[in-house]
Amino acid sequence: MPQTIPLVQHLFRRLRQLNCHSIHGVPGDFFLRALDHIRPSGLNWIGNANELCAGYAADGYARAASQLRRHRSAPSPLVGALMTTYGVGELSAINAVAGSYSEHVPVVHLVGTPSRKAMREPGVRRPVHHTLGDGRAEVYAEMAKHVTCAQACLHRIKNTTEAAEAYDEVLERAVRASLPVYVSLGSDMVELPVPEDLLYKPLKLEPPKNDKSAEERVVHRILEMLQKSHAPLIIADGMSYPFDLQSEINELVSLTNIPTMSFTSGKGLVDESSPSWSPALPNTTDYSRGADLVMIFGPLLSDTNTARWATIPATDNTILFDQDSVELPGSVTELVKSKQVLRGLIDRLKDVKFGQRADVGVLNLTQSPQEVAVPSSSDPITQDSLWPTLSSFLKPEDTLLLANGTPLIGGRSLQLQPRSQVIASPIWNAIGSMLPSAQGIAAAKRNHQLPGRTILLEGDGSFQVTCQAISDIIRYKLDVTVFIANNAGYTYERWLNGMDAEYNDVPSWRYTEAARFFGAKDNDPSYPILARRVDTWGQLQDVLADEKVGDGKGLKIIDVVMDPKDVPEASKPGLSRASEALRSA
Amino acid sequence: MPQTIPLVQHLFRRLRQLNCHSIHGVPGDFFLRALDHIRPSGLNWIGNANELCAGYAADGYARAASQLRRHRSAPSPLVGALMTTYGVGELSAINAVAGSYSEHVPVVHLVGTPSRKAMREPGVRRPVHHTLGDGRAEVYAEMAKHVTCAQACLHRIKNTTEAAEAYDEVLERAVRASLPVYVSLGSDMVELPVPEDLLYKPLKLEPPKNDKSAEERVVHRILEMLQKSHAPLIIADGMSYPFDLQSEINELVSLTNIPTMSFTSGKGLVDESSPSWSPALPNTTDYSRGADLVMIFGPLLSDTNTARWATIPATDNTILFDQDSVELPGSVTELVKSKQVLRGLIDRLKDVKFGQRADVGVLNLTQSPQEVAVPSSSDPITQDSLWPTLSSFLKPEDTLLLANGTPLIGGRSLQLQPRSQVIASPIWNAIGSMLPSAQGIAAAKRNHQLPGRTILLEGDGSFQVTCQAISDIIRYKLDVTVFIANNAGYTYERWLNGMDAEYNDVPSWRYTEAARFFGAKDNDPSYPILARRVDTWGQLQDVLADEKVGDGKGLKIIDVVMDPKDVPEASKPGLSRASEALRSA
Repeated sequence: MPQTIPLVQHLFRRLRQLNCHSIHGVPGDFFLRALDHIRPSGLNWIGNANELCAGYAADGYARAASQLRRHRSAPSPLVGALMTTYGVGELSAINAVAGSYSEHVPVVHLVGTPSRKAMREPGVRRPVHHTLGDGRAEVYAEMAKHVTCAQACLHRIKNTTEAAEAYDEVLERAVRASLPVYVSLGSDMVELPVPEDLLYKPLKLEPPKNDKSAEERVVHRILEMLQKSHAPLIIADGMSYPFDLQSEINELVSLTNIPTMSFTSGKGLVDESSPSWSPALPNTTDYSRGADLVMIFGPLLSDTNTARWATIPATDNTILFDQDSVELPGSVTELVKSKQVLRGLIDRLKDVKFGQRADVGVLNLTQSPQEVAVPSSSDPITQDSLWPTLSSFLKPEDTLLLANGTPLIGGRSLQLQPRSQVIASPIWNAIGSMLPSAQGIAAAKRNHQLPGRTILLEGDGSFQVTCQAISDIIRYKLDVTVFIANNAGYTYERWLNGMDAEYNDVPSWRYTEAARFFGAKDNDPSYPILARRVDTWGQLQDVLADEKVGDGKGLKIIDVVMDPKDVPEASKPGLSRASEALRSA
Repeated sequence: MPQTIPLVQHLFRRLRQLNCHSIHGVPGDFFLRALDHIRPSGLNWIGNANELCAGYAADGYARAASQLRRHRSAPSPLVGALMTTYGVGELSAINAVAGSYSEHVPVVHLVGTPSRKAMREPGVRRPVHHTLGDGRAEVYAEMAKHVTCAQACLHRIKNTTEAAEAYDEVLERAVRASLPVYVSLGSDMVELPVPEDLLYKPLKLEPPKNDKSAEERVVHRILEMLQKSHAPLIIADGMSYPFDLQSEINELVSLTNIPTMSFTSGKGLVDESSPSWSPALPNTTDYSRGADLVMIFGPLLSDTNTARWATIPATDNTILFDQDSVELPGSVTELVKSKQVLRGLIDRLKDVKFGQRADVGVLNLTQSPQEVAVPSSSDPITQDSLWPTLSSFLKPEDTLLLANGTPLIGGRSLQLQPRSQVIASPIWNAIGSMLPSAQGIAAAKRNHQLPGRTILLEGDGSFQVTCQAISDIIRYKLDVTVFIANNAGYTYERWLNGMDAEYNDVPSWRYTEAARFFGAKDNDPSYPILARRVDTWGQLQDVLADEKVGDGKGLKIIDVVMDPKDVPEASKPGLSRASEALRSA
């Protein structure tokens, strides 16, 4: 007889093999018994206040992958895991799962369902709670199909070994596609025995190799284009994180010295101390007028990621490195992984000699610094003064999250320190996602002893959506620093419509009392809490200079009071375009 | 030329015709311009902190229908309305919409989408934010189909008059089926002109009449069964609220004096001061052993509504009045509305003479009161002492919401005053739903000048899911009284699995500071705030006797500290059955 383990331990221990050491969720009766198996599987449970927070946190957890890879200097998959109950739980989290889907984040959504019998023979006259009462037991799995790349509804599978194998296959797809997957488990299946040795069969996480000749043709053509080009430009965009292109991009940049920038969601991918680096300038295409060849890695060219497409260089001579295809002018080559193409390109480039390149100046990549009058100590804090000042607060290894709204706009102009990561939503742009995401990032950093602070630049409207994540952060004593742009409303929306409209206001909360309300202990030496409210430039400077703020330990909440209508000057043309777009067909 | 109005005003003014005077939601760019038309349409906007709260609030708003009908003594439809943005907004609310679907609550979910052009030709290489980036612009509408009874995606319709008519049809279905519907509107459609006189074409809200001969056969058969019965029993269950059976049930009860009870979700339907009324006894079928005929109105016989089906009478001689069918032993008659059958039955009963009926005693409907030792002033508050005591706090016209968990269990034993309504989830049982629902109820009460307090018996785990609803209550100065059963965890779940498990704990928040944190003004004479924490029986008694607590004005939060493992004694057998169910297939 082979040694067996409970089915749910197979599920959990596989997650650990994918470097997921924490499962996020909210307990629900249908999977309560599964929770007893989390610790024996070498994981821990993070019980969130609600499922939406859990979903965002699991997403944030998975986004620590780029840090883990750097830290380990080896391929290291990292998935997030979310566990919710059937119906009410899974649907409360589905917006976060859809966000993971849109931004290519591998999250495993485990759902505890009623028993196999109840799923197969759902009562209509005597229904189970959390159903719709109409006999459609699998309706939620149907809904999940729309926003996950693979599903395994284990109650449908009679043989438990096959159930475990179906699960494994779904995990492999999550990692290889870097997308969320859906797994449901009947309440009576938790402890069904499966052979333990299934766990020692390695998951197939590596994609098959590209067709060698196709790959070589693409590399050859890119080399030709590069050799003809006098003014090439590299843009590192946000999907380079999940497509695992970061190390290759940096190698390419240092090998070729090609001028490099990123759109907002790609910030942090390229070392900003590199001489090739140029900060992205919002709302202008000047920087790219001179480029005769543009290579975009991990593109997600949404309106919000590109100032409504205005920052996309005009040249048609563009190479796009997607997850599994490379698009050259006039042709798209479907491959298994464009990462391999990039690797091939770098290998070839080592042998190639380039002529003189246009420098950053020729490409108009730099602009004379904006004239910002140095504020006096009693001046109010403006968006244009805040962001450059925050740059000086940053340290190497920081993970910086930009909430949707003015932080996403202002954060574009931050000057990062080496080995930083920026989490800025390129397309989903859900307000409220970043505070729980910061909780997830901080948990992953702790689990894997990753260095660096977790800093969230939050909006007040965003904070109010998922404020209970503060409780989750405190409960698990996670290290998170939060700056709240407290401007009494949805300022980004004001610029689109209703500058003075009440519907764009949000109530004024006492943010500095958040930790207290959400249950932080007073004077806990094991978990320091710091909360400050700053109204003036001088107060902000004092806070930023305070090492107790800068050490990143425990929970810090800095309530930064700003004018409700203030936005960075440079963002106004883009906001104006977005506003006009609402008025036209 | 006929007078025209902007399309969105047609949408809004139709809502007003359905007695919806407030739209709940969170602003989003794609429908910002629509918000400018809310006041001109005679409605107001309730901006919630997040979409899940908005969804539950819209559901609560619609549940005030039974009060509105009583108040007006006339058929009065009442729908709730929820407005969210495309993708991120609608999916954040979809759990609430699914809950409305499962419990037959008519909520109109309006979704602001990108422009018609963007919906018809979604970019894949240059996608719009809030999409999944893969060209599936209508994927969220597909998801909504699973949990709404009708959909109108207006961007698909070229002619605006037809768009308005498609919307009207969807509204008619929402009211007639008493179910949620989904309506999406392109951002460029807001101000398209539609003929104003469309608004004066009455909506078809009344169902067609039943087939007269089928109805008469059913009425005749029921009369026969009643005449043969020596010990009939009436059970008013929760769906009698949305199926609008309440006045007929009460008429039937007072006409026949048949002993009457309800399952939890039907509490409040029948006047509990009626001599025929018997409180439902949890976890026993004794009361119904003697019944030889049971009539169940608006049945939703889920496990959670019936102590895992234990409280359903054993007799097969049962008549079930569903929304549009009547089930008699051996046959189901599909009709348009069972309400009409019930009306026909009452008319016939007025002419029929009955013999002597078994009284409540014969049916074992009453039980000798439980021996509860009277606590002393310094004793802790127990579940068994709390609920009877709360009964004495209740007044006529109260709307009482029971959170899922111990409040749902304990609330069964409350003794209601006349014209009360209880909102107790019969099947969806989502924790966190009731606080925003209370906000919606309170808004509907204010809009329609309905009498009575809005009182929520909340759990701490529930509170933490949707705590920002407190901010919404304060922002709109709504009158809500909240008792929080503060027992440091998911006590209901503890009894199912993991009595001492950390995963069943919830952090200890400072609930009495909630109003302050969420931005309440200090000493605002126009909006009183009261918060108390009670640890002992004596403190509880003092609070309940305090007229400042009892007046129901403003926001009251009573933090009732109780033992984490304490549940009402009478609920233990049912919890034990539910726990066993998790262990078996």
